[in-house]
This record gives sequence, structure tokens and C-alpha cells, in this order.
Amino acid sequence: MTSTPPVSFDDVREAAARLRGVAHRTPVLTSRTLNALIGAEVFIKCENFQRIGAFKFRGAYNAAAQLPPEQLAKGIAAYSSGNHAQAAALAARELGTTAVILMPEDAPRSKLEATAGYGADIVTYDRYTQDRTALGEALAADRGLALIPPYDHPHVIAGQGTAALELFEETGALDALVVPVGGGGLIAGSATTAKALHLGIQVIGVEPEAGDDTKRSLECGERVTVPVPRTIADGQAPPTPGEITFAINQRLVDAIALVSDEEVVHAMRFAFERLKIVLEPSGASALAALMAGRVDSPPRRIGVIASGGNIDVRRFTELVRPCLTSAA
Amino acid sequence: MTSTPPVSFDDVREAAARLRGVAHRTPVLTSRTLNALIGAEVFIKCENFQRIGAFKFRGAYNAAAQLPPEQLAKGIAAYSSGNHAQAAALAARELGTTAVILMPEDAPRSKLEATAGYGADIVTYDRYTQDRTALGEALAADRGLALIPPYDHPHVIAGQGTAALELFEETGALDALVVPVGGGGLIAGSATTAKALHLGIQVIGVEPEAGDDTKRSLECGERVTVPVPRTIADGQAPPTPGEITFAINQRLVDAIALVSDEEVVHAMRFAFERLKIVLEPSGASALAALMAGRVDSPPRRIGVIASGGNIDVRRFTELVRPCLTSAA
Repeated sequence: MTSTPPVSFDDVREAAARLRGVAHRTPVLTSRTLNALIGAEVFIKCENFQRIGAFKFRGAYNAAAQLPPEQLAKGIAAYSSGNHAQAAALAARELGTTAVILMPEDAPRSKLEATAGYGADIVTYDRYTQDRTALGEALAADRGLALIPPYDHPHVIAGQGTAALELFEETGALDALVVPVGGGGLIAGSATTAKALHLGIQVIGVEPEAGDDTKRSLECGERVTVPVPRTIADGQAPPTPGEITFAINQRLVDAIALVSDEEVVHAMRFAFERLKIVLEPSGASALAALMAGRVDSPPRRIGVIASGGNIDVRRFTELVRPCLTSAA
Repeated sequence: MTSTPPVSFDDVREAAARLRGVAHRTPVLTSRTLNALIGAEVFIKCENFQRIGAFKFRGAYNAAAQLPPEQLAKGIAAYSSGNHAQAAALAARELGTTAVILMPEDAPRSKLEATAGYGADIVTYDRYTQDRTALGEALAADRGLALIPPYDHPHVIAGQGTAALELFEETGALDALVVPVGGGGLIAGSATTAKALHLGIQVIGVEPEAGDDTKRSLECGERVTVPVPRTIADGQAPPTPGEITFAINQRLVDAIALVSDEEVVHAMRFAFERLKIVLEPSGASALAALMAGRVDSPPRRIGVIASGGNIDVRRFTELVRPCLTSAA
């Protein structure tokens, strides 16, 4: 453990200044129905309303904006099958440069089109036979591009921490903050912010049952790799924590709760019918943990990050249909 | 035409003061994608996030709160198969009194349960053989209750006008305001506010093609009744304009646009996938009119009222499924 953390609260504050007028300041929703259900006051930070539909834009933009001008002019690169692809593409456009995004050739057409729609060049690969990390690094090196990683970079982490900062600016002190965990960038940034502002706050991560790599890693005291998780929460698929994110989370995260796919679908449906918002599975997982009683003795005032809403109607219908049938 | 309008802008301002801390101040959403599509700056007032999931709470509460204390103590009554039932039930609870709500016996169970959940007594009737207006009036008279009508009352209209007031407080002057029309209460209140604040603003109502009673009535210069409309927009089903609402709308509304059910479903899907919000059909109709090009030469800055989001996942899926199949 080092005495200088890789990301400080000042880094988050500087990221917030950089993002002002570029990222949305997303609304915080409350629901009396939800509060009654949980027996607590719950504040939902709605990053599904963020640009590109998820928090990822914060980190990608904060990282790209800090590149030296001559590097930025050459362009950036990223690899992602999900929200980070659109985030990097939009960050490049906002900064007046170009992006090359490496995406699996069988990525949903809507995501390929959305990424191309932000002006990025798409390079596809076969995810069953090719290693995206090696490909991405080779691509960036060949073309002289700066690679913006999806989570394991201090500037990305600091950017992701700005969502929690905005939340606290609206709510004041909270007893707990519940945050989805994929590669760990969002929770590392959130925990950095939370513990700097409110010493006693509990920071609770949420992983899918099938992808509990961060929980296991925290228990073991070192990074553990699990089999590629079979879960509907595709934003939480990384099978191992990032190196920098894990170092931060080991110090600042108090507990990890696990949720089943069924609990996530239940929360997505509740968000639709009662909160009137659309959440993708990963975006609903923190809410799901709370609703399913996976957070022990929930404290009085709880913040929840609803991290994204990128799901099309077709997929939403497929996921929720079984639970409709069983209720019929 | 009378020189003293039944609802003044002062009435709306007083309603806003009454609703402060009781109704939600709902967010105003913007979307760069939508702006590019329409070629204008669009501001969506999200009344789907209002208490009970629709704007109706504003008017019901504003009316109930102005009853004489001894009348209020005896309780209120309302008839509705939709959002006004829940609105009146919640208004009664908030004011510490009781509500009796007359609802069709075949109303969706979720709506019956939600209304009962606010503590109201439900009385059911057969909508094929019984006249709800006569029944409602008899019920109120028998039990000494004050009947809160769904739209045709100055206090209800003034309450509905507070949504537009909040919108203008955030956006400043707009060139046009697009508002769904059912019985005409929301648009009458909105137009009262809009024309008081911004003389040159165009106020445009939106009706389903099958339920164009207000459009026809404005053309004829008198209230016209159309056959009970077959439309998915069940919040816009009244076959004839209200008496008070029509008098106001005749003076203040500039145009009525019509939308098809298909255009409404398209807007609901856009709201889901791009705006990440849930809108019921009536709640999406103003957005639909704009998206379908039903508003002639759209002006530069446009306000849109998204009036409600009360639709369950099952019904949403039924409505959107055909358009998924055709896109497959």
C-alpha cells in the first residue's frame, strides 16, 4: 500500500471543472414508494441521463482532455463492446479530434451505429479468436494514437468520481453509497469522493453473482480472475479487477453485495413502472441490491448510482417477458 | 366571450404556492439527438416524474386544498378510470381527509390497487350500462362529499398551469408550447400561463386523430361531440371539450395538431431508447406531434409537456411489439 493514492479528491474536483458544460449534471430522483419499501431515504443519481446514456463519458472525456495537445491532435483509440466505445467517440468529437474504436464484429448493430454516429472510425475484430487488448495496443502504436482505457487509469477514475460529487452536492451527507462494480472505475472514483467528503460513510459495491471477482479479490487481498461471467449485466463483465482500481477499492470500499440476474430484472421493472426511468441491467444492479435486501441493515440515508440506460426496447422486452408470464 | 377569464395567471401563481413542497418540481430534459431531428431546441417538461406519475396531481390538490375546512373534513369524491383517480386519492391523503373514487369495475387492477393504496375508498360501476357523471354526483350528494372534477373546474385548471410555469422558470421565453389535449384542463392552464408570460408564444394542442373533438370544436366555434375515440391514448378519451376549458382554449390556443397511434408508439419508443424515460401514450402525444412533423414550421425554441408515465411493462410491450416485428 502506497501513501500517495493514485487518485486524490483534488483530481476529482479538477475533473468536475473540466466536465462543466460538457457532461450533463444528471438529476437525482427520489421515490416515496421506494423509501417505504427499503425503510430508508434513497437518492438515485441518474447517470442513464448522462451523455451517451451512461457515466462512462465522464471518465473518457476527463482522460482525453488531459492529453498533450500534439498527442490529442493525432487522435485517440479505445476498445469496448459497450458504453466506453460511445464515450471515447463522443469525447474525441467534443475535443475536436478523431477516434478509432475497436469493437467486436458481432456487437449489436445499434451500438456500432451509435459509435459511428459520433464520427469515430470503427475497427472490428473476432472476439472468439483475437485478443482485444493486444489488438488495441498494436492499433494505437501503429497509428500513433493515445489509448483511453475503459477503467484502469487515474484520469478515467477521477472523471467517474464526479457523479458522486454532484450527488453529495445535492444531498449533503449520506450514510451509505451503493455503486455497481465492473472493472472498478466508477466505484474507485465514487469512493475517493465519498470518503473525502464524509468520513463515516459506507461505500458498498455491487457485482453480479456470476462475476464476483472484486468481492473475491478483496477477500483474498489480491486480484483474482473468475471465469467470464454469464450475466445479463454486460457492463459488469470484466473477469478481474483493474490494477489501479483494485488498489483504491481495497483501501476505500467497505463491502461488496451480490445480485442475481432475476433481482436485476425486478429492479429494472420497478424503475420502469414506478420511477418511470429506463435502466440497463448494469445500471439497475445497485438498486437491485438494495431492493433484494442484499445490503445488510440499510442505513438511514442512502445514495445509489444508476449507472446507465443503454438498452433497446427489444432486449428489455426479452429480459422482462419471463417475469410477466410468471405474474400472469 | 366574457371579459373576466375564469382562470387568471394570478390563480396559477397562487396554485404554485399551494403546491410548493407537496408536488414535485419535475425535471426538464433536453436531448441533442432530438434537437438535431427536429431542427429546434426542445425542452421536455417531465410530468411522468410527478407524484402519481402524471400532472393530474397538481389540479386535484389545488382544488381540494381550496375547499372550506368543514367541507374538506367530510371528504372528497372523484370519478375516473385513469390518473385523476390516483390524483384525487393522494390529494385527500395529503390534506388529511378521505376520498371516495368511482371507478369502472373493469379498470386495470394496477390502477384500482394504486388508488386504494393511497387510502381511498373505491366504488365500482359498470361503464357499459351506468352513467358515471350521474353516479358520481349522486354519490357525492348522498355522502356530503365535494366532487373534484377531472378538468372542468377553475381550480383544477389553475393547478395544471403550474407545470408550464415551472418550465418557463427554467427555460425563459419559448417560441411555442406543445401540450396534449384530453378534456382540455392541462392546455387551458398551460395557455393561461404561457400567454401571460410570453405574449408572442404559440400554444399548440395535440389530440389523437380519433379524438379530435377540441380541433373540431375550435373550427366550429362551439363544443362538438365526437364518437368515443378508439385510441391507445386513454388519457385523451373525453369525446367533448369541457365547458370552462373550451372557453379558455378558444381564446388562447393557436392550433391543434393530430397524431396517429403509430406516431405515438414511435415517440414512446424514442423516449425509452434515447431519452431513457417512460411515457404513457397520452404522455407521449405532444412529443409525437413534433417528431412526426405535425407541427407546421417548428419554431426555434419549443417546450413540450410530457404529461404522464403510467403504463405497465406488459402494456408497453404489447404496444411496441408490432413495431419491433416490422423492424426485424
